[in-house]
This record gives sequence, structure tokens and C-alpha cells, in this order.
Amino acid sequence: MRILLVGAGGVGDAIAKIAATRNFYELFVVSDYDLSRAERTIEWIANRHGRDVAAKFLAAKIDASSAANVTELCKAHKVDFVINAVEPKFLPTVFSGAFTAGVNYLDMAMSLSEPHEADPFHLPGIKLGDAQYALHDQWERAGKLALVGMGVEPGLSNVFARYAQDYLFSEIDELSIKDGGNLTVVDDQGNEIFAPSFSIWTTIEECLNPPTIYERSKGWYTTRPFSEPEIFEFPAGIGAVECVNVEHEEISMLPRNIKANRVTFKYGLGEEFIGVLKTLHKLGLDATKLQRVRSAQGPVDVAPRDMVAAVLPDPATIGPRMTGKTCAGLLVTGKDKDGRDRATYLYHVADNAETMADIEAQCVVAQTAFNPLIALELIAEGTWKGAGVMGPEEFDAKPFLDLMSSSTGYNIKWEAQERLPASPLRHP
Amino acid sequence: MRILLVGAGGVGDAIAKIAATRNFYELFVVSDYDLSRAERTIEWIANRHGRDVAAKFLAAKIDASSAANVTELCKAHKVDFVINAVEPKFLPTVFSGAFTAGVNYLDMAMSLSEPHEADPFHLPGIKLGDAQYALHDQWERAGKLALVGMGVEPGLSNVFARYAQDYLFSEIDELSIKDGGNLTVVDDQGNEIFAPSFSIWTTIEECLNPPTIYERSKGWYTTRPFSEPEIFEFPAGIGAVECVNVEHEEISMLPRNIKANRVTFKYGLGEEFIGVLKTLHKLGLDATKLQRVRSAQGPVDVAPRDMVAAVLPDPATIGPRMTGKTCAGLLVTGKDKDGRDRATYLYHVADNAETMADIEAQCVVAQTAFNPLIALELIAEGTWKGAGVMGPEEFDAKPFLDLMSSSTGYNIKWEAQERLPASPLRHP
Repeated sequence: MRILLVGAGGVGDAIAKIAATRNFYELFVVSDYDLSRAERTIEWIANRHGRDVAAKFLAAKIDASSAANVTELCKAHKVDFVINAVEPKFLPTVFSGAFTAGVNYLDMAMSLSEPHEADPFHLPGIKLGDAQYALHDQWERAGKLALVGMGVEPGLSNVFARYAQDYLFSEIDELSIKDGGNLTVVDDQGNEIFAPSFSIWTTIEECLNPPTIYERSKGWYTTRPFSEPEIFEFPAGIGAVECVNVEHEEISMLPRNIKANRVTFKYGLGEEFIGVLKTLHKLGLDATKLQRVRSAQGPVDVAPRDMVAAVLPDPATIGPRMTGKTCAGLLVTGKDKDGRDRATYLYHVADNAETMADIEAQCVVAQTAFNPLIALELIAEGTWKGAGVMGPEEFDAKPFLDLMSSSTGYNIKWEAQERLPASPLRHP
Repeated sequence: MRILLVGAGGVGDAIAKIAATRNFYELFVVSDYDLSRAERTIEWIANRHGRDVAAKFLAAKIDASSAANVTELCKAHKVDFVINAVEPKFLPTVFSGAFTAGVNYLDMAMSLSEPHEADPFHLPGIKLGDAQYALHDQWERAGKLALVGMGVEPGLSNVFARYAQDYLFSEIDELSIKDGGNLTVVDDQGNEIFAPSFSIWTTIEECLNPPTIYERSKGWYTTRPFSEPEIFEFPAGIGAVECVNVEHEEISMLPRNIKANRVTFKYGLGEEFIGVLKTLHKLGLDATKLQRVRSAQGPVDVAPRDMVAAVLPDPATIGPRMTGKTCAGLLVTGKDKDGRDRATYLYHVADNAETMADIEAQCVVAQTAFNPLIALELIAEGTWKGAGVMGPEEFDAKPFLDLMSSSTGYNIKWEAQERLPASPLRHP
């Protein structure tokens, strides 16, 4: 396999560093708009794993906003798989550039949504991923695979859902992804500071867009932001965190292939973070529309959300000052194989101290990065195969989870924790 | 009296409009950096009160950042009193321009503070007004009066304090200014929006600087922002509002001339507003230091606080969409003339519907504007006199309050409301 990684930011950098410990590819091109970022990643690999390992890596400059440039780079290096690790706004050009080049494609976040024009808080408009699924037939006819949403969430969460359906449950009531952590960040003096572990730009987008919910009887619908708050008890010492509905890819993806009465995504933002997002929205500081403002250079036009991103610490740089764990998981409720009520939380926990030691990446980034590599390795060996625009839940979950946890594989633990079935199976 | 008003913004505009109903001056020059603003004010006066009244008014262009320009305008129009109604940052130049011109001066907010370098949350650095009081001797020697802090707070609050000392109390425990309202603002669709009634720039400055407190036994000291929260019951149907300590001029001013064990300023920000300010501070969006950010014009340097001000509605324009009342007052506790415990809240309430009808100014602005005129009228008739840098509490309060409430005067009601003396007199 010859791979082109587009984007050497936080997640891209971590993907390349983890790839350096595996052997399923011939060539790994690390590309970025800023060539020096790509070179820095490969330099780290050379220092950690030696020049021989680093020899399979190549740095390149890319303009992800140009589909033609993506196609060109694919051809120049005869790649057969593109990994898209840039901001969602560049998804259309990377996706289409890969298609034109006639190569396979993988991403970790899907095409963006558009709210319903008339009734945004009840009806979905264009859902996350809709623009990509619309091209399924073209990809299938071309005999190429676009494996979409193959990070941790979406990604590992989809694998868990498929695993639950095939191996744990006879009937699924609800698939509810629950994501939460206990991360804290300190400043140089050791005082705790407000520093989101993930791009504030994307977090605002996820949290302030109307959350989508799927119910078998109603189909997809939306609510007001921060709906259905609940306290979820996370494992591994993380403890209770306030979770609310957010818009997320799994809600578009899972109902296409997994039979469930309800699909939700609950993000453990915590009370403080929810308060911050609500305030930003109330003041209009979440807006992406340009606003005239005075500057040292005279009156200029700035998107308020860009100002918010500018004042906060860069999430890529806070790893060394961060402490704690983050948990990504899926709570499945329904009937077990014997028809009894069952509630199982399938999850993975990343500890920042460990990911910093392993690959010098903070845990939220690292937790995303290993998943695309496991998938590519299964594809390279022929275990996973397909053509068209496909989600991770369309493939057998067992080989993925085995390769993930095996000591000759990625040696990454996941758990299935039994919970008390809280409420009777709903049949809406 | 020949008056030069510097600044025809919200408060300046309202001062000129109210002045048009009085007769104690020969000439009233309305000046602004934007000449058309001054002209608009005078046009309003002509329309409302006729060309004869407007004939005493003159529009002029001024650059308040230039002391020389202020001096020049004073001389050109042979004025004997300058009213400073511009942003606090121009105070030094207007104050010094008036002194150089050899004229009297009045302002409604005093020179800015500087936090203590080593221990800002316990010790005051340079207090509000310190820079002006330092020039007292020069003003006194010149035989000119600088009447400072002569708006509503400081201003009317200082008059109330002097009145309480002379006429209501034999011994004062605490002077605690309490400011609160029940103002709401709606958008074009009638939905309630977040729209501060006063400059967000100044509000952030007042509320996020360490609040100052005076105690007779300790002198002046500071605390963390938002300290000593309490629920205060405001009169006139406003009701209970959460109030917290903020930095304010009265705390520098009153202990110089009124004997009290304690002086505080509690601002009724309400829970929501306090939450917004805390969040802005947590994220660093209150900062005035320039921050590099991307803009439509390329990378630029913007003060985050300017961005916040830019996204919020301009307080000068929200009057027509505002409903409710604002209350400025002073709670005095201590012993009455017979030695019994007494607690009296002296206050003034402004109703937005009334101030809009009277002078097309929102109530927070209007409530500030009448006070300097009452003071100038008392000075013009010789009832108040003095030389040096003096606060309103240095003059007899009775003629001020009489002129304020008299039907041949300003016809503005104030009240003295008896409260239950809550706690025994402290003697720290």
C-alpha cells in the first residue's frame, strides 16, 4: 500500500508516528500546506525509530483546498490510499481529488451539515456525511473504497456498534455514544486554565448546530443545542460528567446499517464548558460571519469565532501541560442473545501521560489517530474489502478489535463494561 | 455662564437636551470629534424647543485627545466651564486643557486606576481619581474649581452621602452604593436579546478590575472581582437583583470627606451578566492587549475586548427597544439623630419609557445627564462655590436635592426609604 496523508497537524502527525511502528505499507507520504510541519513529523520518526524506518516516509507540500493538487500528488507518488487529516472545510476538495486520481480514500470526519431553512430545531437539513453518501454509486462503479468516518468517533464507535449487533445483542434499543474525560490544563505557574483539548472552531460547530437524533418510528429529527442533559458515570476513574446531545456523524451513519430504535450522541462537555459555549452564542461570538472591528491596522473584518480561537491556547501545544484521561465509548441497551435486558458500555480510555510518552501527542488527538491505521492494515491484508462510500460499521468488527488489542497488533485495550439495564426496552 | 460640552455621545447629547429647558447660562457649545453628532443634538433642540432656545447652542468640532485643542476652544468661545463627557481615556487631555485655559471643569467619571503591581487583589495601586486629586493644590491656587465625579454614580450618590451625614444620621457605619435595574432589550422580532445598557468596554473595566473597599481601620484595600455577592431588593417594582463589589469612584471619594466605618459599591449585575463577564475573562476575551487574528484583509492585530464590543448592539441605539427601570442609590446604615439603629436607602429611579419620551435617551444615559446641570446651576447662582479638585460631597446637599425635585427646578423625584437595620453597628 502507498499512502498519501493530507495534513500533518495534530491528528496527522500522530497517525504518521504510530504508522512508523507498523509494516503494511511501502510508502507513506506526509503532506501539509506547511512543508516544515511534515518534515518535523518525519524527523521525529527518524529520531525515535531510526533512519531505516523513516526511509519509507516522504514529506511533501500540498494545497488541500485544490482538488487538482491532491490528484496531482496521488499520481506523482503512485499512491493507492489517501488519508484525509485536514479541517472539515477542505473535505470536498480532498474527497474529489482522490476520486479523480482513482485511488481509495479514508477520513475521520464527514462532510458538513446545513441546518433546515424553515425549522432548524425540529427537522434536519443536510446531515453530516449526506454529501459524501450521495456519491456512493460513483465510487462503487469506479471500484474504489471511500471509508468514511474512520477515526475514534465516528470510527471506533461504529465498530463497537457492529460488534454489539453481531456478538452481544439479539435486539438493540438504543445506541448512545458517550464521550467524556477529566482533562485539566495548567499554565506556566501551575494554575488551571481554560484550554479546550480540541479545536474550539470545530467544537462550537458540533455543539451549537442543532443536535440530530434518530428514532426508528420518526426517522431523523433535531432539537435545540444541549438537549437531554444527563449525568453519565465514565469508567477508569473519570467519574460523573454532564453529557448533552450534539450533532455527530454516527447519527447519520449507524441507522443505515445497524438496526436500533434510537441513536444519539452525548458529549460530556461538563457544566463549565456548556456555560462557555452558551455565553459565546448569546453574545454572537460563535459567528463565522465577518464583523467590522477596529484593529491596529485600521477597520477590518474578522469572524468573531476566529477571535475566540486566537485567544485560546492552541490545542496542539497543550499536551505537556495537560493531565487526565479521555473516554470514547458506546452505550448499547437492548436484549442479549438470550432475550434478557442488557446494557453494555464499550469503550476506550486514553491517558494523556501515556500518549505523551508514546508519541508526544495529547490523548484526544492520539485516540483518533490509531483507528485509521488499523482499518488500512485490515484492508491491506484483504480482511476488510469493499467499494463505494462505506462506514466502519459495514465491516466485520471482530478483526478490527482483535488487531487493536493484540500484543503483536496495536496493543491498545478496549473494554465492554456491563451496566444495570436502567429502563425497559422501548418500542416507540 | 459660558459652557463647553466636550463630547456629544449618549450622555453629552442628553446633557444638552436637558440644558435646553434651563436658563442659567449664556452660551452652550456642544463639541464632538464628529461635528455632525453635535449638530444633530442642536437640531433636536431646535425642533423640540424652537429656534430661540437653540440659538444659545453652538456646534463645534473638537479633538479630545489634544489638550491644546481643548484650551483653544475654551479661549475661542470665552467659556468659563468645561463639561467633560467623553470616554475616560481622554480625561487627562480634557482636564489639563481646561486647566491651561484657566476655566472651571466638571466630569462624571474620574481618572483611571492602575492595579497594584505585586498584590493586585489585596492592595490598591493607583485608585480611580488619584491622578486628579494630586492636582488639587494647583487648581486651588489658580482659584478654579474642578468638580469631579458629578454624574449619577459618582455624583448623586455623593450628594446622598452628604445629605445622610448632615440630616439623617448621627453616626454612619456603612455607605454602600447599590445600583440595579430590570432593563430588557428585544430584537426586531420581539425576542429578548443580550444587550448591555452601558458601554461593554467600560463595564468590563469596572467589573474585572479588583474592586476597592474602604474600612476606617484598614484604609483602602482590594478583593477579587465579584466579591461579597448579595441579593438587594430594589424599589419601584425592580425587585431582587444579585449585587457584587466593583471598583467605583465613590470609594476613593467619600472617605475623604464623610465619616463612615466602611464604603463599598455594589453593582446589581445580576447572575446572567456576572456569568458573561466571568466567561469573557476566563477566555481572555476581556483583554485590551492586541491579539494576532486572521481577517478578510489578512492577519491583523485586534484587542479581543474591541471584538466583544463590535458584536454587541451599540448601547446608544437600544433605547427604543428597551423596557424597564434603573435605580441608582445609596444604602446608609448607622445611628439616627437619636442614637437608634437606622438603615436608609436614598435613591433615584429612571424609567426608560419616560426618558425616551422626554429626551429620546435611554434611561441609564438620562439618569447621568441631569446631575451636572443641577450642580452648574447651583454654581452659577453662587449657592455652591469652591476652588480646587472637589467632589460633590464637599457641598451642601440640600440645595441640590431641592433644585432636583422642585417643580420649578428639574422636577425629578428622589426617595429616602427606611429599611430594617439588619445588623448591629460594627466598630471594626
